[in-house]
Amino acid sequence: MVYLVRMYRVRFVPLGGIIGVTKNMYVYEIYKDDALQDIIIIDCGIGFPREQEFGVDHAIPDISYLLDKKDKIRAILLTHGHEDHITALRFHYNDLGRPPVYGSRLTLMLAQHKCDEFNVKLKTTLVNFDSTYQFGSFKAKFIRMTHSIPDTTHILLTTPIGSFYHGSDFKMDLTPPFGYAPDFYEIAKAGKDGVLCLMSDSLGSDREGFTLSESVVGKTFEDEIRTTRGRFIMSTFASNISRVRQCAEAAVKFNRRVCLLGRSMKENTKLVKDIGYFPIPPKFLIEEKDLSKFKPHEICIIATGSQGQYGAALSRLATNQNKFVRISKGDKVVFSSDPIPGNEEEVYDIIEHLYLLGADVRYSDVADQLHASGHGSQGDMLLLMRLTLPKFLIPIGGTIRHQRLYLELTKKMGYQDKQVYLLREGETVWFDEGGRTSLGEVIMTKNVFVDAYGVGDVGDTILRDRMTLSTEGIVFTVLKVARDNTLAEKPEFTSRGFIHGESGTNMNDKDKVYDGAAEHIGKIFDQNRGTMPLKKELVNQLEKYFFRATNKRPLVVLETIQV
Amino acid sequence: MVYLVRMYRVRFVPLGGIIGVTKNMYVYEIYKDDALQDIIIIDCGIGFPREQEFGVDHAIPDISYLLDKKDKIRAILLTHGHEDHITALRFHYNDLGRPPVYGSRLTLMLAQHKCDEFNVKLKTTLVNFDSTYQFGSFKAKFIRMTHSIPDTTHILLTTPIGSFYHGSDFKMDLTPPFGYAPDFYEIAKAGKDGVLCLMSDSLGSDREGFTLSESVVGKTFEDEIRTTRGRFIMSTFASNISRVRQCAEAAVKFNRRVCLLGRSMKENTKLVKDIGYFPIPPKFLIEEKDLSKFKPHEICIIATGSQGQYGAALSRLATNQNKFVRISKGDKVVFSSDPIPGNEEEVYDIIEHLYLLGADVRYSDVADQLHASGHGSQGDMLLLMRLTLPKFLIPIGGTIRHQRLYLELTKKMGYQDKQVYLLREGETVWFDEGGRTSLGEVIMTKNVFVDAYGVGDVGDTILRDRMTLSTEGIVFTVLKVARDNTLAEKPEFTSRGFIHGESGTNMNDKDKVYDGAAEHIGKIFDQNRGTMPLKKELVNQLEKYFFRATNKRPLVVLETIQV
Repeated sequence: MVYLVRMYRVRFVPLGGIIGVTKNMYVYEIYKDDALQDIIIIDCGIGFPREQEFGVDHAIPDISYLLDKKDKIRAILLTHGHEDHITALRFHYNDLGRPPVYGSRLTLMLAQHKCDEFNVKLKTTLVNFDSTYQFGSFKAKFIRMTHSIPDTTHILLTTPIGSFYHGSDFKMDLTPPFGYAPDFYEIAKAGKDGVLCLMSDSLGSDREGFTLSESVVGKTFEDEIRTTRGRFIMSTFASNISRVRQCAEAAVKFNRRVCLLGRSMKENTKLVKDIGYFPIPPKFLIEEKDLSKFKPHEICIIATGSQGQYGAALSRLATNQNKFVRISKGDKVVFSSDPIPGNEEEVYDIIEHLYLLGADVRYSDVADQLHASGHGSQGDMLLLMRLTLPKFLIPIGGTIRHQRLYLELTKKMGYQDKQVYLLREGETVWFDEGGRTSLGEVIMTKNVFVDAYGVGDVGDTILRDRMTLSTEGIVFTVLKVARDNTLAEKPEFTSRGFIHGESGTNMNDKDKVYDGAAEHIGKIFDQNRGTMPLKKELVNQLEKYFFRATNKRPLVVLETIQV
Repeated sequence: MVYLVRMYRVRFVPLGGIIGVTKNMYVYEIYKDDALQDIIIIDCGIGFPREQEFGVDHAIPDISYLLDKKDKIRAILLTHGHEDHITALRFHYNDLGRPPVYGSRLTLMLAQHKCDEFNVKLKTTLVNFDSTYQFGSFKAKFIRMTHSIPDTTHILLTTPIGSFYHGSDFKMDLTPPFGYAPDFYEIAKAGKDGVLCLMSDSLGSDREGFTLSESVVGKTFEDEIRTTRGRFIMSTFASNISRVRQCAEAAVKFNRRVCLLGRSMKENTKLVKDIGYFPIPPKFLIEEKDLSKFKPHEICIIATGSQGQYGAALSRLATNQNKFVRISKGDKVVFSSDPIPGNEEEVYDIIEHLYLLGADVRYSDVADQLHASGHGSQGDMLLLMRLTLPKFLIPIGGTIRHQRLYLELTKKMGYQDKQVYLLREGETVWFDEGGRTSLGEVIMTKNVFVDAYGVGDVGDTILRDRMTLSTEGIVFTVLKVARDNTLAEKPEFTSRGFIHGESGTNMNDKDKVYDGAAEHIGKIFDQNRGTMPLKKELVNQLEKYFFRATNKRPLVVLETIQV
């Protein structure tokens, strides 16, 4: 009688990031004779549910599957310092048994920083790019890569049955403005030695060609500053550290003082300054309150709020709510990021207001090269395939649409459908000795949402919405606005679970409350004298009004239509 | 007393190709204690002087410098099979002492083929891409690369003082339709091991981004054929073997027979068919004379003459001079190449004629992705720099403009001016031990022109022009053409060195000759019934007429103006 002994098998378990873009967390497992030996976790980030406001609500990976396997977790490896790759550690690190955490310099710094507020202390090891690390039967090598944040890496995981190239968020930036270019030799060497499966960022698979180098944007900043008579104001994500640095360096070239606005912008810059990643001479960095000491052409402001977030630095500038500076003719505002789908309305609202104040506004519709994605396009992805020459491929970090387009790309390289796994969260793949693969058991994961503990600027969370709905109710209104931006009709309100039918209120009270609300809205329109108030401002004012009037905080949903 | 012994030095001597684009020939020399030890020659091609018609006149490298150093020439290495890299061998091979010739399969085949007419027999070695070849103190490794012809290579030359990466004509084609992709591992390994100097194709340095993959054009062919009711006719360079194959394969997909028109098209295809590079089933390949046996929608014609060359297959189709096929409504003609600067007029002339015959015409002005350059753009060049990480760089294969733009590119990578040599033909660079470099002695080269021994389709050569001018004279005329394409005035002629003042002719004879010429021109216009005759046709007819009338063959220069 012959016993077939299957020695080693590897399983890939995506606990997040696989089609939601964000909330990245990937588990690699080695089994020997069907017994789990070792687990490596790559990344542990928060998610930004797409249907809500960006950056406000958090989802975190569901780690239930791992809780009885803590003793097998050999390490957590982090690819780069973006929140959707590191920030869930503060919720999960202790529950995962506090395994060692490996990553590059900036990555570990940001990861620990995010954990500080929760008093979570990571056991970190700063990786050496020349070293290979052994974790049980895994070997891991970190490889330098480029993205929109310095110190981004890819990870080559070698197992007894083959190698896995974990190609997390990247673009092939041949001329990064700072730091290292991709280490093409190590990537090609991985391919030469044999890669069993490539896990590849697929978010840019709907764009042809190669993504622009980040340094192109620095050149654009210089060109834009050169032609600006007044203040130069740039807005981008605070996490895009290279972008912020390029803008500050361009400002210094033209002898402008740099003022950072927005909590996350200040915080991130402070962190990276300590490790030399923001080498702006101190005399060029000024505080908000000192803005009035300089002439407009001596000022460069770098502000959060490029997605039109209400209450963020840029939105406050656009509505003249900043105490120290008033936007005026000659000033130029540059949006150095594209609106994330769903945010267009808010962004255009801000742009309208900036124009009304007399500023020149530059955004991607009217100017090229203000923004370069941090994610590779089809060319970047094809190049990674060519370099690593994998037998199998799994697109990660994109939506279903991106996965499908990635599949098309693999066909251009001659791959067949059976070599590409399009997975959903929790769907797993087995890799056997001899190059056989198969879909494994589906790990059931739940949606886990957490409130935004001081991370975003302001906003309602899903959790808050649900709580509000269950305890305070909801009020809808549609404002009919005339062409001259005055109210065309007295606003009418509809509600659920708010006033009507609750004890202690009656129809008369309700009418009184709504009349007052309509009057309040009318006043805001009057104060704005012919310019359209910000939608968020109206909601905010209504929330305050309802609270004063009823001591309740209903969810306010407001639409405007032009009549 | 201390003697400084300079052990090894290397000199790079471009004998052609350095700013003229074509006529590629590069010499690498190793010196030991100032004595020349070994010479390696890379490529030995003909040149197409830019100010003349493409592909008609030839210049060849001046090898005077090498003639007393034949015993040091260890080998000639060929990068790929284009004429500007191999075709001067038939003039120079024996004079160079018949050194061994190394190259890839198609390259050697084409090189030998070009030598056959001259009874020159090359001593060839087919290279193995896994091998390193030793030539005196040189080591050479061939590296797979992509261009518009299969079996293109780059060459890594290693010397006692460092390595030279000879990056001849290339683009980084990640999805080549046939054959191999660039061998990124070997290129990156060269960079990892250390490249002293990169010699890089610079012809595409005026284009941003990456050059399109050749396979994009194949997709376009399919789309174009799908929407063609009548004959599908594609014109490109015969040397673009991948393009011709893609078109033929697309035709077969749609069940069309393929007919090759033009001598070089037939000849090239015949050659590559023997080595399996044109695997079209025989029943799909038909002869010109069989075109009438098939319905228009069963036919695909692949023709020479995409540059508007007079007398080439496409020009004959456009003027209904092909006996077996008449272009008509429903037919589609695709130009799968961009006009080379200077050829626009001829190309548009052909396009006009094709439209008049009722064909649908697709060329780069009206349709994208009909053509992909064989030369890389800025992105391709930056990627080669990133992979090889050279200490010094020398742009080759471009004009002065391309060299300057390449210099700009190197700055994006952080290189300084002193690390980049912009050379003219015969200007040399010394590389010393310890990484010092300096400009060397300038090797004086002469222009060497040769007549077009049966290579191009038809045409006058510089040499012929000069000979004609000195022995037969020249006749000018300006034709005034009315809006309805009839002659507005009787043509007048001016001449130098033709009839006037020569013995045996007098003014009366001259007038008679010119009257006859005018009459002849008039007849051609009449025959064309309202369409403008091809300029080349008029010149050709005049040449014939003058020969009949005077037994002389003056150079005829003719301009037309619309009045």
